[in-house]
Amino acid sequence: MSNRISDELSSKVMAEIKSSPSSRRHGDTLPYIHKVGAPPKQNIFDEIKDTFKETFFSDNPLGHFKDQTKSRKFVLSLQAVFPIFEWGKGYNLSKFKGDFIAGLTIASLCIPQDIAYARLAHLDPKYGLYTSFVAPLVYAFMGSSRDIAIGPVAVVSLLLGSLLTDEIDKTSPDYLRLAFTATFFAGITQLALGFLRLGFLIEFLSHAAIVGFMAGAAVTIALQQLKGLLGIAQFTTNTDIISVMRSVFSSAHHGWNWQTILIGVSFLTFLLFSKQIGKKKKFFWVAAIAPLTSVVLSTFFVYITRADKKGVSIVKHIEKGVNPPSASEIFFSGKYLGSGIKIGVISGLIALTEAIAIGRTFAAMKDYQLDGNKEMVALGTMNVVGSLTSCYVATGSFSRSAVNYMAGCNTAVTNIVMSIVVLLTLELLTPLFKYTPNAVLAAIIIAAVVGLIDIDATILLWKIDKFDFVACMGAFFGVIFKSVEIGLLIAVAISFAKILLQVTRPRTAVLGKLPGTAIYRNILQYPKATQISGILIVRVDSAIYFSNSNYIKERILRWLTDEDAVRRESNLTRIQYLIVEMSPVTDIDTSGIHAFEELCKTLPKREVQLLLANPGPIVMEKLQASNLTNLIGEDKILLSVADAVATFGSEAEEPL
Amino acid sequence: MSNRISDELSSKVMAEIKSSPSSRRHGDTLPYIHKVGAPPKQNIFDEIKDTFKETFFSDNPLGHFKDQTKSRKFVLSLQAVFPIFEWGKGYNLSKFKGDFIAGLTIASLCIPQDIAYARLAHLDPKYGLYTSFVAPLVYAFMGSSRDIAIGPVAVVSLLLGSLLTDEIDKTSPDYLRLAFTATFFAGITQLALGFLRLGFLIEFLSHAAIVGFMAGAAVTIALQQLKGLLGIAQFTTNTDIISVMRSVFSSAHHGWNWQTILIGVSFLTFLLFSKQIGKKKKFFWVAAIAPLTSVVLSTFFVYITRADKKGVSIVKHIEKGVNPPSASEIFFSGKYLGSGIKIGVISGLIALTEAIAIGRTFAAMKDYQLDGNKEMVALGTMNVVGSLTSCYVATGSFSRSAVNYMAGCNTAVTNIVMSIVVLLTLELLTPLFKYTPNAVLAAIIIAAVVGLIDIDATILLWKIDKFDFVACMGAFFGVIFKSVEIGLLIAVAISFAKILLQVTRPRTAVLGKLPGTAIYRNILQYPKATQISGILIVRVDSAIYFSNSNYIKERILRWLTDEDAVRRESNLTRIQYLIVEMSPVTDIDTSGIHAFEELCKTLPKREVQLLLANPGPIVMEKLQASNLTNLIGEDKILLSVADAVATFGSEAEEPL
Repeated sequence: MSNRISDELSSKVMAEIKSSPSSRRHGDTLPYIHKVGAPPKQNIFDEIKDTFKETFFSDNPLGHFKDQTKSRKFVLSLQAVFPIFEWGKGYNLSKFKGDFIAGLTIASLCIPQDIAYARLAHLDPKYGLYTSFVAPLVYAFMGSSRDIAIGPVAVVSLLLGSLLTDEIDKTSPDYLRLAFTATFFAGITQLALGFLRLGFLIEFLSHAAIVGFMAGAAVTIALQQLKGLLGIAQFTTNTDIISVMRSVFSSAHHGWNWQTILIGVSFLTFLLFSKQIGKKKKFFWVAAIAPLTSVVLSTFFVYITRADKKGVSIVKHIEKGVNPPSASEIFFSGKYLGSGIKIGVISGLIALTEAIAIGRTFAAMKDYQLDGNKEMVALGTMNVVGSLTSCYVATGSFSRSAVNYMAGCNTAVTNIVMSIVVLLTLELLTPLFKYTPNAVLAAIIIAAVVGLIDIDATILLWKIDKFDFVACMGAFFGVIFKSVEIGLLIAVAISFAKILLQVTRPRTAVLGKLPGTAIYRNILQYPKATQISGILIVRVDSAIYFSNSNYIKERILRWLTDEDAVRRESNLTRIQYLIVEMSPVTDIDTSGIHAFEELCKTLPKREVQLLLANPGPIVMEKLQASNLTNLIGEDKILLSVADAVATFGSEAEEPL
Repeated sequence: MSNRISDELSSKVMAEIKSSPSSRRHGDTLPYIHKVGAPPKQNIFDEIKDTFKETFFSDNPLGHFKDQTKSRKFVLSLQAVFPIFEWGKGYNLSKFKGDFIAGLTIASLCIPQDIAYARLAHLDPKYGLYTSFVAPLVYAFMGSSRDIAIGPVAVVSLLLGSLLTDEIDKTSPDYLRLAFTATFFAGITQLALGFLRLGFLIEFLSHAAIVGFMAGAAVTIALQQLKGLLGIAQFTTNTDIISVMRSVFSSAHHGWNWQTILIGVSFLTFLLFSKQIGKKKKFFWVAAIAPLTSVVLSTFFVYITRADKKGVSIVKHIEKGVNPPSASEIFFSGKYLGSGIKIGVISGLIALTEAIAIGRTFAAMKDYQLDGNKEMVALGTMNVVGSLTSCYVATGSFSRSAVNYMAGCNTAVTNIVMSIVVLLTLELLTPLFKYTPNAVLAAIIIAAVVGLIDIDATILLWKIDKFDFVACMGAFFGVIFKSVEIGLLIAVAISFAKILLQVTRPRTAVLGKLPGTAIYRNILQYPKATQISGILIVRVDSAIYFSNSNYIKERILRWLTDEDAVRRESNLTRIQYLIVEMSPVTDIDTSGIHAFEELCKTLPKREVQLLLANPGPIVMEKLQASNLTNLIGEDKILLSVADAVATFGSEAEEPL
């Protein structure tokens, strides 16, 4: 007796496993007790609120303000705006030691770079130093990254210079004023994005686009340095490779200066060599102090030999003293206001992208959270304050942040240390730069931007995603052959095209059953998966929207036609059920609903019944709202493909 | 003995069902024999070829050309370009009877509409009739829709008129030439989209946008007809509601003509009433002949009473004779070439959208296939030929196609019948329209466009998808308050924003196990689903791209933080495993790969292990290409969530 019972039990249970019931009534057996649920009905305002919250406040920034006293809330707000009050409490001498050394290291790196980068923006060297004094100070109080090194950077300087010269002659007295105006609006743009919590907009600049853009900018910048490196007097102001190379070769016979070349090339070799050594973490300081060493040595050399009288161009005079105020210089009206806003928005966005990318990289390495929107507010404030104190657009520098990290920085105090060193330089040391040859500055720039060309990343792009590679190359060639803006535009356009293509031509797959399981998978990915007699299972791999609803409908019908033809040829049972696996269909819109309506009208004419497997909550809600659940039949919407096959497949255990 | 064996068997089998093995070695038991597959490696050219094919040739247009003789291929090509050679073979008298009656019916409807619509485009009435002669004839040979009625339509006429007057004064002799130029380029645009198989581009105009746009255009057109209906002499050329209403009210005291109003309002009432009656399928002919009846009656009335002498404006003279050639009128150079191309592209796209929408609707109702790209070639050729023979942009008319369908049309022969009737009218009857009052034409237009306002569809949009509703309203208000182009632009922008929002902020869900099954579902959709102790299962509902990779990474970490806090409060086991269900993740790009890399770096610091469940073929390929499979661990990428829980969940049977 007990024997018979357990036999019965085991056979019943075995049938369950195989999910191959021979009868059609299974509402009462184990796996079929669950109906496809629709989420609890939300009212329209809650729905809008949720979408809004997830779009703009996905990080729940006010979460820790809940259930706090008023005074506590005030402290929290203060800490939210000025994170220094949060991490400052735990600050101690041992942390300061690390920060002090790292600060000195990046200061020695930034001073020559500042002088060099200012020239990329067609500004006097002192504006580079000014920018490295005020901006890092502001950031130290408001920023939340512990590793970023703030100041002028090569790419933004180049971009700013190129955008400014499009609008105004670089010798015009208004040039500087327009630069401050652009810096002001760059800050406002960053502030606005942070305040309005639109930070996600910068995500539209894909990693691939940034790799290509940076490499293109690096090549452009390096080529432009041929002017300084070769001592060419007459040089194009265009940034594209063709104009630059024409300038270089047309001056080859009379415009080159061998003394300049000697200085430039030997220090470039020294810098690249020390950079190579500095790749070992132990010797990072070699790379860090090489630029300042080069400046000191070359300046001394020129001073001794008076090479400046033999055609070696030098920095000449750098004014002493700290930043003068510049609020009155900004154009708040007049014909340059528009240009200022335009240039500010573009350079502000690029600066932001760079800073956020750096911040995220180091935050991931040390595992701390970085609030993108808060960062934007900090960077924006920093640039607004900067524009009022004779600075131009500052952001985080890739190379200096890496050195900062390797030198053992602990907090944003490194930026304060660096800022103080720059202040001292401005007050005391600027006259010493008089005899610094421009060739050595060119060498410093070239050595710095070489690091922006990331060949490994490009190879990886090629390996992982061809479309990303195309976007990367588009940005690269756009920058070097046309201009920085065009390169950016191409990269963004290609990235968008990719998203739209995916939404327009989503993938569909025919599913089969993995032998011995109740799991249904793509028959191309799992060649062992077998199709079920009389049933075609198609999975749609995308939300169904207006842009793809027709395609999906027609693609499903084509699968049906093709598969039917194959089965007819092999004398197999014709397809009676079409199961559409809806798991990946995360959303459907009215066009998608219409496509299913048309499917419901067409399929009966082919004597095929439509079954839906596992529609998600949003889809289920919309199917109900449009009454499509009734048109299809509530009993034809099932929990899973296995469930659908078990319920409707009379010959489920006869795989093809 | 047998008893013990079967007991053992049944208990083992039961364990399988519950997918709750207590040991961790399950590679040898039934459901775990399958590894996550990667698709067979394709070379890059095949990959590009496949993507290209699926994007542009998703309907496999050359499929039936395979394995055919040369002469057969020629016949097939001919039939491909001129479908009339395909369906013409089976044409017979009984089909012709249906087509003849339907053709006469739509002719009686189109003649008054042609005259009226030409005026919307600020053209002489005869150009409307010309367009209804040549265009349908060309379409009959090349088109594949059996139900569409070709000719001038209200919305495209309005759009063309509005775009043309933006560029040129409507009294200028070049106005007509620019209209032909625009028509030519509208045709070229449609032809090009068809030939280049870019037909999918029109899908970007969503159903919702079309509903709003059509309703807006209808309101705009109806308001403009107040000029004719009230007999106002001085009227604005703007199409926005504010200018129009100002024109109407400023002329209220002296500019209205009561005789005109009497004629207009009484015939409008008659038309709307007959339209109402015509909604019953049996009486559709009442609505079909009402416009022509109105024209005949009102013309006779004006002729008898000579109301034209009392201020009732009439059509006056319509030239006799068929279309004169107009090839020499088209601007192929000069300052109007650019405007012509611009207007042509816009109106060509809108005309295309309308025609394809109509074609698809009726094809679905009668279940025949409509090849979108072939349709575009047909419509394009028709407009190019039209532009050479004094026609303006023609397309399929919603209202006339519906009448055509109800009158029992069988093939495109109805268009030939209609075309011949229009030819006879042009040759013989045009002088009879001399005394037709413009008020009755205005009434005909209003009665026709009222049908374009689809309130039911709008309500459905609201019910199903709020975003679609917003796009619809955007288009509607854009059209009525600003202009047709702005309305279109708003609708397209909102539709795109929706796609981008979904790609930027995709949904994620925490999954739980449905009791008694091995199925894991969204705990919000299935409140019965229970979470597993020590394990958090998160499903990502979107492809992972640059635009959302950071958000997804941070959202997953936030789920982890939140859930961990909840479990710690309830004194439950802390989360040790994070299972990311990848089924809906149809693609991943390099930014997505980086996000996972960062996740791999962060999670160990929280003492959580990352497991991936069911990555699709594309994702698997990219995980391998980027070496992420090794970083995560091959054994941590599993076939399904159930599999992952079974393999790693030591306390899987202790649900929360």
